[in-house]
Amino acid sequence: MSDTAALRVGVLGAQGKVGTAICEAVSAAPDLELVAAVDRDDPLTDFTDNKAQVVVDFTHPDVVMGNLEFLINNGIHVVVGTTGFDENRLDQVRAWLDANPEVGVLIAPNFAIGAVLCMKFAEQAARFFDSVEIVELHHPNKADAPSGTAARTADLVGAARAAAGCAPMPDATSTSLDGARGAEVNGVRVHSIRLAGLVAHQEVLLGTQGETLTIRHDSIDRSSFAPGVLLGVRNIGQRPGLTIGIDPLMEL
Amino acid sequence: MSDTAALRVGVLGAQGKVGTAICEAVSAAPDLELVAAVDRDDPLTDFTDNKAQVVVDFTHPDVVMGNLEFLINNGIHVVVGTTGFDENRLDQVRAWLDANPEVGVLIAPNFAIGAVLCMKFAEQAARFFDSVEIVELHHPNKADAPSGTAARTADLVGAARAAAGCAPMPDATSTSLDGARGAEVNGVRVHSIRLAGLVAHQEVLLGTQGETLTIRHDSIDRSSFAPGVLLGVRNIGQRPGLTIGIDPLMEL
Amino acid sequence: MSDTAALRVGVLGAQGKVGTAICEAVSAAPDLELVAAVDRDDPLTDFTDNKAQVVVDFTHPDVVMGNLEFLINNGIHVVVGTTGFDENRLDQVRAWLDANPEVGVLIAPNFAIGAVLCMKFAEQAARFFDSVEIVELHHPNKADAPSGTAARTADLVGAARAAAGCAPMPDATSTSLDGARGAEVNGVRVHSIRLAGLVAHQEVLLGTQGETLTIRHDSIDRSSFAPGVLLGVRNIGQRPGLTIGIDPLMEL
Amino acid sequence: MSDTAALRVGVLGAQGKVGTAICEAVSAAPDLELVAAVDRDDPLTDFTDNKAQVVVDFTHPDVVMGNLEFLINNGIHVVVGTTGFDENRLDQVRAWLDANPEVGVLIAPNFAIGAVLCMKFAEQAARFFDSVEIVELHHPNKADAPSGTAARTADLVGAARAAAGCAPMPDATSTSLDGARGAEVNGVRVHSIRLAGLVAHQEVLLGTQGETLTIRHDSIDRSSFAPGVLLGVRNIGQRPGLTIGIDPLMEL
Repeated sequence: MSDTAALRVGVLGAQGKVGTAICEAVSAAPDLELVAAVDRDDPLTDFTDNKAQVVVDFTHPDVVMGNLEFLINNGIHVVVGTTGFDENRLDQVRAWLDANPEVGVLIAPNFAIGAVLCMKFAEQAARFFDSVEIVELHHPNKADAPSGTAARTADLVGAARAAAGCAPMPDATSTSLDGARGAEVNGVRVHSIRLAGLVAHQEVLLGTQGETLTIRHDSIDRSSFAPGVLLGVRNIGQRPGLTIGIDPLMEL
Repeated sequence: MSDTAALRVGVLGAQGKVGTAICEAVSAAPDLELVAAVDRDDPLTDFTDNKAQVVVDFTHPDVVMGNLEFLINNGIHVVVGTTGFDENRLDQVRAWLDANPEVGVLIAPNFAIGAVLCMKFAEQAARFFDSVEIVELHHPNKADAPSGTAARTADLVGAARAAAGCAPMPDATSTSLDGARGAEVNGVRVHSIRLAGLVAHQEVLLGTQGETLTIRHDSIDRSSFAPGVLLGVRNIGQRPGLTIGIDPLMEL
Repeated sequence: MSDTAALRVGVLGAQGKVGTAICEAVSAAPDLELVAAVDRDDPLTDFTDNKAQVVVDFTHPDVVMGNLEFLINNGIHVVVGTTGFDENRLDQVRAWLDANPEVGVLIAPNFAIGAVLCMKFAEQAARFFDSVEIVELHHPNKADAPSGTAARTADLVGAARAAAGCAPMPDATSTSLDGARGAEVNGVRVHSIRLAGLVAHQEVLLGTQGETLTIRHDSIDRSSFAPGVLLGVRNIGQRPGLTIGIDPLMEL
Repeated sequence: MSDTAALRVGVLGAQGKVGTAICEAVSAAPDLELVAAVDRDDPLTDFTDNKAQVVVDFTHPDVVMGNLEFLINNGIHVVVGTTGFDENRLDQVRAWLDANPEVGVLIAPNFAIGAVLCMKFAEQAARFFDSVEIVELHHPNKADAPSGTAARTADLVGAARAAAGCAPMPDATSTSLDGARGAEVNGVRVHSIRLAGLVAHQEVLLGTQGETLTIRHDSIDRSSFAPGVLLGVRNIGQRPGLTIGIDPLMEL
């Protein structure tokens, strides 16, 4: 029966570390069928020959635009994890999609569902609390502090509070060692911990009279992108045009 | 200017433990004015005489219906924390409101904003994860296990997963001591910790490949109802008719 | 039988907030008997008249030395929570104790057992890990950051690592916002969070390859001094001379 | 200079998953030198030929006794992670050591330093609190609940409390769903969480009036045995005879 047929999925960059994991995840999902695993020496026509309906692209900024042009023009939906998209590139993708209005393309900087939810919930909850602070914890080889995700979360929290007209957060600190109260991003204090034995973790603490709410995301393995990629694969066909980030697919 | 005038607020049950705290919270809020603090020996006409626009009722099931009839018929919005509302009582309140369609009444079982958000976020996130379990932690004088809030959260999580067609949660446990894996509520494992030094806490753990999301609510003081009551006071006037629970006012 | 008789306990400063709580705690303990509750207008001879064996002093720096002289010279053990002891005062106490070598006096800056253990365990564990950082979390009315306890913990951790010849902690941070990586105390990073809804909390994070150990202390009520005071009351009689801090009584 | 010369280390089972990681860890340590990496087809005389001072054995119960006999009789210290030691085997090892009294052998069931400290600190702290409960959290493929480590921790906690004459833990639960309050091990409640995205984690919660202490161990990678093995390698030479478990080497 056609409505229970597995979705036909292709993978581009299939021999890379991420691509390999995605091939495995697709093969393991009963509602998906891996019909083409393409790497740099294989022709893109493998996707059309094998009637792929959705292709996942984790390749390289140098080749991703060529891949997208081919896939969109052949009516194949695409889930893109490759980085390097600026406004020019996005405009080009939109132009190709205008000519193929039934095709859906998802371009996402972060496929970790938990990270996306952590950010979203923090933003939603921010205006109901007197105080919000963020602690991000990473392995000690990380070069930047705070993490990009923490800075982005602080930005969203600060913006939500400004939009809601929240009062400044209470803070009676009058004597302090340099750095004790963390960095300030859009009015929100962010603290960066670097510790052997950690991978990537973030905690948003929100407090008001007599109660606190804590939203924490722990990522302990790079494989955490897989569920988000499959979410994209399953849903992008119902969402023609360009979608940025997996949040819109989550319909929160 | 009328749009910056403080909202005129009355409190019913003003000398009770909760009522006292609400009187203080209203008095401390610059956008609210406490115009009438009424307890059992005072006339309800104190509210009309003092032109109260919203009244907070934390009284007793025996008297709350009389209070509501008077307030609604006098065009005063009401925020109700008193318990004991069954469908009969709610129908009666709806009937009074039909006759006074501009009046808003909020009846809420739980005014702790953090608890409401914890439950809401758990429900929203549940379908994106392979596993969800709940840990609730309370002082050792609590009589029931699990807590009502934890059981309600598990119910919402279970229902959200059923509606989304989620697979059963993975669990390879084959050898187990009685009780180790907790109680099951609507397919969700719930664990109850009773510990001296705790008050009321709940943690919802959600996990998928390589990542977990944890949503935790800590309530350490009964005063944690106050911000939720003020949220109701400030918003119920814009929401004619009967509202159950503070969630709808939070516009998540 | 004499060895099961309750220990005869007196309280000095019995009407203060802390003193009241201690009187209640002593009265509630089956192995202790409250034989004298003395406040500023009562004579110290109440303790000798009622044969107190141990007295708890939570009074004021102005009067505590007079209290100690009387109690020590009358052979009564003392547990002191009053502040303001410098080396001069301690020397004076030692002199009185030299003349009464059977008497034990405990002077402690912090009676919260959990706080003392958190500090002790952090110190013990510090040398086995590559990284140690401290997060302390308090209500937003606190004036100093970091807290005195966190600074003291960092000092102990730093000293333990130096004594064991530990390598510097790994940290590849090369781009950072001001304050993101916290304050440095004796080589240990300390992060201070100020949040409505919190009281006093501290978390010590220790990490090495593939694993982390976290030691957390939560104090949500000033009554948390009571178990430490009773520990002192029960044990100081077996410990003649001056004892500083409750750690030695805990025999860890 | 002899006192700064690197310790000469051999590895047995050098091509196994664990052995490979240990070879890497030894090679990376500036105070250790990897002088012999032996697997099943290599002769044990590689160790004597290369003047190994300490050998690490992660092999198999079938061969470990032969390895130990050879190493002990050649005056080489041994750190053993291989399983399957019963009292008979331990007695045999002791006999070989009696004949070679300068040799040290460490046999340990768990080399994760954090796990050992978590257990130790829980045992030490247990008698100072009214309540102790344990939560262990693992990946959903685990067959037993609770984990062996959690059951062992509960045993130690229960024994420490019995030895100190602690009162039973307070618990007013009178209405409860089956399993909500966890399993009971030696009087201590243990709760087992199974969640995708987790590896191996344990939390010991201790509470008394107004405060709680939480000791948590997170292991997210099998490589977490390495620091404990190196601790054994560096110290077993100063500890002639048989040592069981790494705790004695930690001198807590």
